[in-house]
Amino acid sequence: MTFEDLMQGPCAWYGQEDSEGIAISSRIRLARNIDGYPFPARASKEQRLELREQIGELLQEDERFAEGLYLRLDELSASERMLLVERSLSSPEHGEESHEGALAVSTDTHDAVMVNEEDHLRLQVLRGGLSLKEVWEEMARLDDALEQRVNYAFSAKYGYLTCCPSNTGTGLRAGVMLHLPGLALMEEIRSVLRGLGKLGLAVRGLDGEGSDADGFLYQISNQMTLGRDEESLLADIQDVVEELVEHERNARLRLEEQRPAWLRDRVGRAVGILKNAWVLPSKEALDLLAMLRLGMGMGLLEWEHAPSVEQMMVEVRPAHLQRLAGRSLEVEERDRFRAQWMRSKLADLKKGSTL
Amino acid sequence: MTFEDLMQGPCAWYGQEDSEGIAISSRIRLARNIDGYPFPARASKEQRLELREQIGELLQEDERFAEGLYLRLDELSASERMLLVERSLSSPEHGEESHEGALAVSTDTHDAVMVNEEDHLRLQVLRGGLSLKEVWEEMARLDDALEQRVNYAFSAKYGYLTCCPSNTGTGLRAGVMLHLPGLALMEEIRSVLRGLGKLGLAVRGLDGEGSDADGFLYQISNQMTLGRDEESLLADIQDVVEELVEHERNARLRLEEQRPAWLRDRVGRAVGILKNAWVLPSKEALDLLAMLRLGMGMGLLEWEHAPSVEQMMVEVRPAHLQRLAGRSLEVEERDRFRAQWMRSKLADLKKGSTL
Repeated sequence: MTFEDLMQGPCAWYGQEDSEGIAISSRIRLARNIDGYPFPARASKEQRLELREQIGELLQEDERFAEGLYLRLDELSASERMLLVERSLSSPEHGEESHEGALAVSTDTHDAVMVNEEDHLRLQVLRGGLSLKEVWEEMARLDDALEQRVNYAFSAKYGYLTCCPSNTGTGLRAGVMLHLPGLALMEEIRSVLRGLGKLGLAVRGLDGEGSDADGFLYQISNQMTLGRDEESLLADIQDVVEELVEHERNARLRLEEQRPAWLRDRVGRAVGILKNAWVLPSKEALDLLAMLRLGMGMGLLEWEHAPSVEQMMVEVRPAHLQRLAGRSLEVEERDRFRAQWMRSKLADLKKGSTL
Repeated sequence: MTFEDLMQGPCAWYGQEDSEGIAISSRIRLARNIDGYPFPARASKEQRLELREQIGELLQEDERFAEGLYLRLDELSASERMLLVERSLSSPEHGEESHEGALAVSTDTHDAVMVNEEDHLRLQVLRGGLSLKEVWEEMARLDDALEQRVNYAFSAKYGYLTCCPSNTGTGLRAGVMLHLPGLALMEEIRSVLRGLGKLGLAVRGLDGEGSDADGFLYQISNQMTLGRDEESLLADIQDVVEELVEHERNARLRLEEQRPAWLRDRVGRAVGILKNAWVLPSKEALDLLAMLRLGMGMGLLEWEHAPSVEQMMVEVRPAHLQRLAGRSLEVEERDRFRAQWMRSKLADLKKGSTL
């Protein structure tokens, strides 16, 4: 597989969600460090380089990664690194700087390993829909396979040792990406999400920590990694997410019952603007696409040969957009190019429904 | 002519403007009172009724009004009176209450006489485009014809006497309706209009005194009626308006030169929203139609069988909309019906240009 092959394919985070499109994807990330090496921030450049090559060789022996990619980040351009971030394969921090970092991507592009991020290893497995159990099984397999070949830094008292104490223990962070426009439109999203903190869960936007909830996309993940076994932690998240999905479903029903015209107005205006704008900032594009997605999920919009809204949500983002343009674009140019691309993408759609 | 005939026809204020559509219409209004009668507010009901019948008979003898309408306002419903206001035939004050008032409309619907408004008579002549001279000639003819049959309240010192001193003298108010979206988008409208006050000119919105400039429509008219002869006053207004038209033309050129994408964005979004909204408040509809009008005026939008934006600007207004619906509508229903009507109106338009 080449970098270009990766870019031509779809992202792992969409395409397998349930038909309503509320639970989009499930992800588990494990933080692991190799015994005998200082954490990346304290390691010497030579140590980081050595570790990077060692991990690369190890992953070559894993069947899921053997035909995949092993990307040394300092061999990539800044825009290539951003492409990886926008596809949720790399963290924003890992994408920005390249301290002898690497990113391994599995052949099917669903799994990834960040090397020399905050920890030596950040294993990541991603699947569509609400599928934490399946994701965990796959992750456990990958983790076990690696553990047979390297010595993880591990303490009998604390569990897996990590650079930041907040990851110590299981080193596990499990998250589900949810699309919650119904709760947002009903103005219930804040109160619903506020309750999650008390349950030890964090809410983040599309790009993880510190990012805004553009496009009404929310990642729900655990904050605690210590003192809980993985299965019970995942079962708890699964329960909470199922409840959130039910809340969103309910909000959509109430929208349809209580404010049908207003709902169609929001969806219709989004379509109208996406089809006719000449200047389209990134956040607005995501928010409007989210309305499109809601309309399609609720059966208000039916198009022949419907576009993949999720794919568009990735393609409108800055690095992907510049890849489409074939050149680097200033912010203003980008907003114009995004609008142009969107107009052409939606121009020939034939409506199949009344909206 | 019947009331229904009047409603079926176009309004006098549009359809004859210059091709750019900047100067939409010219209007002259004369305030006149009949000697021997107290001003309407101080007259008895009997006096007002007597005057109303007397004026009705007089206008029957005028060739332009003989086949027109003579509407006794207390015989009309509130919504019928509002229809007259929305068509700029009646003032909002005259439309709201009916102190034995009447409205005469000429056969061609371009001229009107309000009876028992603030003054006994408010003569009004309206023509498309910037045509103050032509309007004045027609007005002088009407005024002279009436003056031969009644004694106007006139003072050799002050001129024509009116209820409000601000109208005394010539009793003349001349106004031009301008469409200035270019200056508004360039954010120069305030500074341009501020200068008009110093020239003794007033700026008002679509519905006259106190109304907002919905749809970027501005009425420019004189404030002074005393101590100036009509011809020089009109020549001054004509000069100022020609300058404003030039300013607007210039603003549009600069928009096209400096912010072409942004301009198309504004116009495009307006089209997109008008074609797809499900809830459309009146002010928003006017503002979006104004953008449509700008796009058409600048050649950015070319439609086969283009709709009359001006006609739509009248038809989206509350009373006209309820007439289209065939029943009275609450505000929220109105916003939904307006959106529905607009969608159907614009649904089948074929684009002829790139925007």
